[in-house]
Amino acid sequence: MLNSLDQLKELCRMGQPVTVSVACAADRKVLQSLRDASEEISLSALLFGRKEEILSLLSSLEISSDLFSVVDCSDEKSACAAAVRAISEGKADVLMKGDVPTASIMREVLNKEYGLVKDTLLSHVALIESPYYHKLIALSDGAMNIAPTLAEKASILENSVHFMHALGVGKPKAAILAAIEKVNEKMEATLDAAELVKMAGKGRFPKSLVDGPFALDNAVSSEAAQKKGIVSPVAGDADILLVPDIECGNVLYKALNFMGGAHSAGLILGASAPVILTSRADSETTKLYSIFLAAAVAGSRR
Amino acid sequence: MLNSLDQLKELCRMGQPVTVSVACAADRKVLQSLRDASEEISLSALLFGRKEEILSLLSSLEISSDLFSVVDCSDEKSACAAAVRAISEGKADVLMKGDVPTASIMREVLNKEYGLVKDTLLSHVALIESPYYHKLIALSDGAMNIAPTLAEKASILENSVHFMHALGVGKPKAAILAAIEKVNEKMEATLDAAELVKMAGKGRFPKSLVDGPFALDNAVSSEAAQKKGIVSPVAGDADILLVPDIECGNVLYKALNFMGGAHSAGLILGASAPVILTSRADSETTKLYSIFLAAAVAGSRR
Repeated sequence: MLNSLDQLKELCRMGQPVTVSVACAADRKVLQSLRDASEEISLSALLFGRKEEILSLLSSLEISSDLFSVVDCSDEKSACAAAVRAISEGKADVLMKGDVPTASIMREVLNKEYGLVKDTLLSHVALIESPYYHKLIALSDGAMNIAPTLAEKASILENSVHFMHALGVGKPKAAILAAIEKVNEKMEATLDAAELVKMAGKGRFPKSLVDGPFALDNAVSSEAAQKKGIVSPVAGDADILLVPDIECGNVLYKALNFMGGAHSAGLILGASAPVILTSRADSETTKLYSIFLAAAVAGSRR
Repeated sequence: MLNSLDQLKELCRMGQPVTVSVACAADRKVLQSLRDASEEISLSALLFGRKEEILSLLSSLEISSDLFSVVDCSDEKSACAAAVRAISEGKADVLMKGDVPTASIMREVLNKEYGLVKDTLLSHVALIESPYYHKLIALSDGAMNIAPTLAEKASILENSVHFMHALGVGKPKAAILAAIEKVNEKMEATLDAAELVKMAGKGRFPKSLVDGPFALDNAVSSEAAQKKGIVSPVAGDADILLVPDIECGNVLYKALNFMGGAHSAGLILGASAPVILTSRADSETTKLYSIFLAAAVAGSRR
């Protein structure tokens, strides 16, 4: 059972060494976090961008260029394209955003010719360590899909289940969240939850246990579930929280991180390689753990 | 500044004594919490329901009937109606749900003849004490309005602002929540936030500061807001969090209470008196603080 983000390092050490492909790598914090990560796990990096800028940053950060190969690219678009191609050509295992807008790198990820997406849906997952929960819990999607349809929710759930499998959780328990635990025709989140549970019954999400709708308390607290008379193996023991939309997911993610003492790591799932899109607002810890998380997922795939 | 729910007791002691009207009062936990509350603040109660059952419960709980008057009612409907009439006739200041479904009591609250609602919208507010925030924060609406329209959001915000005024917060700061802090046409929550800010500019919410859209982190953390370059008196210092819908509000409420070490109290606003609708799932603390909260609001009105 995973109960701390630090265990991600152990997972990385058990898996294969990984190479990170960084688009527009002239970013001090990105390079620092890659250096910090490489001191703890087997990790190398291909740095795409303006070579001079990158080399000068590496030198000012006193990072030896042994683990990091720099590939000169004249502009943002070519750096993003080259970083993505490195993945599709099998030269790297994880894609990471450097000093470039998310939209620019995602455009290349979605490129039909050499991109990383076939017929899957991209989704964001956060892996959260909360002092108020007995194990790590995955939350999806609080950052990418705005108002997913039922079919999209199914894809998001599928991505999350595969993600937990990659982390060694053999049969993750997924709680489909809503405001209440009963199906109510006026509340789409509860109707979709019931449909997802039906899909699960038909084998759509192999090696998982899917149940819902749940209000959050019943998904994470056995005591709360008991008080409500809810009997489900998922109640109080969820590994995955599937939220109905981005507002709900984002608020939950932020509540745990900013008003709940939690730490977290985040990834984009659904592409042929994990994608790290950390932002300025993320803490150093989040950036570092996101690299470990991507490496653990990628290392388990090879 | 209010920074602990315990201060509600002080507010009650500064205000007028209040009388609670309880619909279907034959409920052990409700009577216990009323007794506990009456030991700390000036509070009496009118107990509507089957007189024999109530008296027998009071006796088994060793509650003296000095502060509690029992009014015999033959059935649920008449008990709810009588409890509501006690408010409209000025005999009581706070309505409280006993052992009766929420729908039954709300039907009487909304009764056109003797009910407690004119042209206002009813909304739920939770007042939350979080160990990760420097003051109490109000959250609305995570329990009553499912998917409020812009006009309904304005009413919910209005109720919340009046509520904070009643608690002595002269100029509450309200953060309109969304998943991001920029207006995005694909995200209704951000469009509505911008409209609410415009309404505020035109004086719709007197004696308040309204801003948004905010992602939660920017509403409650000055550091997060600074990192994002957000300059607003509301950023990092919100008194009120207005959520876009019930899923978002409920998940936030539950996250803080079940995965954030918070305590809270809850009320229904918008009627001519505060309404307490505690549920089986609420902790004893929540029940007790909800009574203090209702009494503080009612006591400030008289």
